Amino acid sequence: MCDMKPKKAERIFLDYASATPVLPEVSVSMAQYASVHFANPSALYAEGVAVDRAIGVARTEIARILRAHSDEIVFTANGTEADNLAILGLSSHIMKAYGSAVKPHLVISPFEHSAITEAAALFQRRGGIVSLLPVYEDGRVRADDILKLLTPQTVLVSVMYANNEIGTIQPIKEIAKVIRYFKKHNAKKIARYFNGAGPLFHTDASQAGNFLSLDVLSLGIDMLTIDGGKIYGPKGIGMLYVKRGVTLLPRQVGGGQEGGRRSGTEFVAGIIGLAKALSIVQKDIKKEGKRLTNLREFALDTILRTNPSAQVNGDRENRLPNNINICFLGHDSEFLVLKLDVRGIAVSSSSSCNTKKDDPRSKVIQSLGGKDCDGSSLRITLGRSTTKAHVQRLVKCIPEILK
Amino acid sequence: MCDMKPKKAERIFLDYASATPVLPEVSVSMAQYASVHFANPSALYAEGVAVDRAIGVARTEIARILRAHSDEIVFTANGTEADNLAILGLSSHIMKAYGSAVKPHLVISPFEHSAITEAAALFQRRGGIVSLLPVYEDGRVRADDILKLLTPQTVLVSVMYANNEIGTIQPIKEIAKVIRYFKKHNAKKIARYFNGAGPLFHTDASQAGNFLSLDVLSLGIDMLTIDGGKIYGPKGIGMLYVKRGVTLLPRQVGGGQEGGRRSGTEFVAGIIGLAKALSIVQKDIKKEGKRLTNLREFALDTILRTNPSAQVNGDRENRLPNNINICFLGHDSEFLVLKLDVRGIAVSSSSSCNTKKDDPRSKVIQSLGGKDCDGSSLRITLGRSTTKAHVQRLVKCIPEILK
Repeated sequence: MCDMKPKKAERIFLDYASATPVLPEVSVSMAQYASVHFANPSALYAEGVAVDRAIGVARTEIARILRAHSDEIVFTANGTEADNLAILGLSSHIMKAYGSAVKPHLVISPFEHSAITEAAALFQRRGGIVSLLPVYEDGRVRADDILKLLTPQTVLVSVMYANNEIGTIQPIKEIAKVIRYFKKHNAKKIARYFNGAGPLFHTDASQAGNFLSLDVLSLGIDMLTIDGGKIYGPKGIGMLYVKRGVTLLPRQVGGGQEGGRRSGTEFVAGIIGLAKALSIVQKDIKKEGKRLTNLREFALDTILRTNPSAQVNGDRENRLPNNINICFLGHDSEFLVLKLDVRGIAVSSSSSCNTKKDDPRSKVIQSLGGKDCDGSSLRITLGRSTTKAHVQRLVKCIPEILK
Repeated sequence: MCDMKPKKAERIFLDYASATPVLPEVSVSMAQYASVHFANPSALYAEGVAVDRAIGVARTEIARILRAHSDEIVFTANGTEADNLAILGLSSHIMKAYGSAVKPHLVISPFEHSAITEAAALFQRRGGIVSLLPVYEDGRVRADDILKLLTPQTVLVSVMYANNEIGTIQPIKEIAKVIRYFKKHNAKKIARYFNGAGPLFHTDASQAGNFLSLDVLSLGIDMLTIDGGKIYGPKGIGMLYVKRGVTLLPRQVGGGQEGGRRSGTEFVAGIIGLAKALSIVQKDIKKEGKRLTNLREFALDTILRTNPSAQVNGDRENRLPNNINICFLGHDSEFLVLKLDVRGIAVSSSSSCNTKKDDPRSKVIQSLGGKDCDGSSLRITLGRSTTKAHVQRLVKCIPEILK
């Protein structure tokens, strides 16, 4: 039974794509850095050196997970800042170093997070050219399409690792391969522009960190975004992996922290917590992936069977284990969210970052084309605390809210 | 006795200008927002609404302390980001809205934090004009000098509330008065430029929050920076007060949080902690101010009496209660820091944000002119846990490290 008011006061949280609780182990790892090891890591005395060393250990641990060098990790306040830094830090460098005679070119998908699309809009206003990749009905881009868009002036391709709304996993390795192919066969032309800087490849891995490998070498990427608040770490911390040799103009200037790439006193506890969280979720990729894929498939099967109007948004195979995104044609997303809320279940209509906009309809669903359900879909995302019982209650509630 | 190795393992921290421990009450206030109230404040369901409301309460509390409106508070990652946003957010807006025909003008003091001076350098590279105020030997600027520098094209004056190295309190109210006077007597000329936007007044109050009133109405300022990590709140959070009517171009774009002025998922626990910390330290301004002034005066008197070469940097009256900055001519700052460190006492040579630079000598002391002690001064800053016994040990150690 899906009671209007559940007897047990227990709420069921199924919006892990928007926020994750800080894991107890992560909280423990951070605790000492509030009132004990609180010194400024730039300080010269023992306390400062100790904190600086702790940051170094965290940085090295993250680098190990990414198979990167520790000087390739730039800590930021969140995924948004990391995304902005990738697009605008790079393009500002290019524009400053090479002037405005040749317009730099950027390729993104239209369903990137707003931190990318808004940064791309800013890049365009500053004189850059932006190309949008087509997205197919399966919620994925095609590496071949990138090859068609690349020019010798392309400085960056940014495609998210997994979509934040429909959870579709993008062909990152294939894209990297195509970019390498283009570079190899156009080396001379590319060398004529921006000292041969482009095209680089950035991916926003904010949603991918819990389930997919972040091995930047094997992925073949130049920049990668992580957000602490999406991987069971603290909010207020994120990072950008920046491959050696890639030059970014800092967006936050001052004390020269993070190798001059991001000034401001380090959020020490956040950095420690980010490393701990990333290490835990990456260790559990397989186990959690399998467990949640089973729960997701059970939910999808049941919802599709019991609700004839329901349609899955995006490919069911190449999909994050925890993502359920379903279109309920003829229904209003936000109303469905509120109806589930009353029944004790927290899900979302689209990205949280969309809800503050004038038009909260999902840009992601719109980008898939062919469907008219951008105002009638639900994003249900499972997490480490999600149980079979939670999912069972969810699937029982869905027919009720559609009545 | 100032033992080389103190018998008690207790270390004495006297660098509260670089970092402060998170107060226990602040930690308690934050605890629930890690793993219980972890939802994204943009979410529509009960959990999201509750977190959004908690942010609203924190924002209102901060606004109350500043005698501001809650929509005038923009949360950032730290003081550096807030400083950058004030200078670059404003100037980018001016440059975008009014083109490059007329160069906007900025007035700063030369001993601002590097988050201001570096932002000003960027502003200049983008086509703005920067004027530097003279600083006098007492470590203060003069409001009259500002009047001489103001032009109808001046968009912003930025002078820190209290200096981060020598603790001198700047004549903020007088500066605001002079700017108002200039505006009144040049209204027509000012109206010709940038739609009459300037001159606005920003102050970096990062060091002032523990001891001085932040009443923006009575101070007469348009923008004000606070940093959580300097007022016994968490690191990773800061804020910029932005008076209604002041338009800034956002520097971090995406989800449109903070009224579109700073995108990115809110660092909820940090915001809660910032409000709690600010409320505690502001409540204790008088009591702590008196207590630390007494300790500071005792320390200064003793050090000057027992070390003939010692000279105080900056005015002794108009000075933060916790700041001791002394020049030991002929000695090397960093060496003195390390010698005290060995003796269990943590102090600094200049700003922490300086130590990562190629030339770590104090720009602040250099700006005072007339003295040649920018490489031989110590900054000793007291805090809430500092006792008379701590200061007594410090003053006993100083002669020993000067031998």
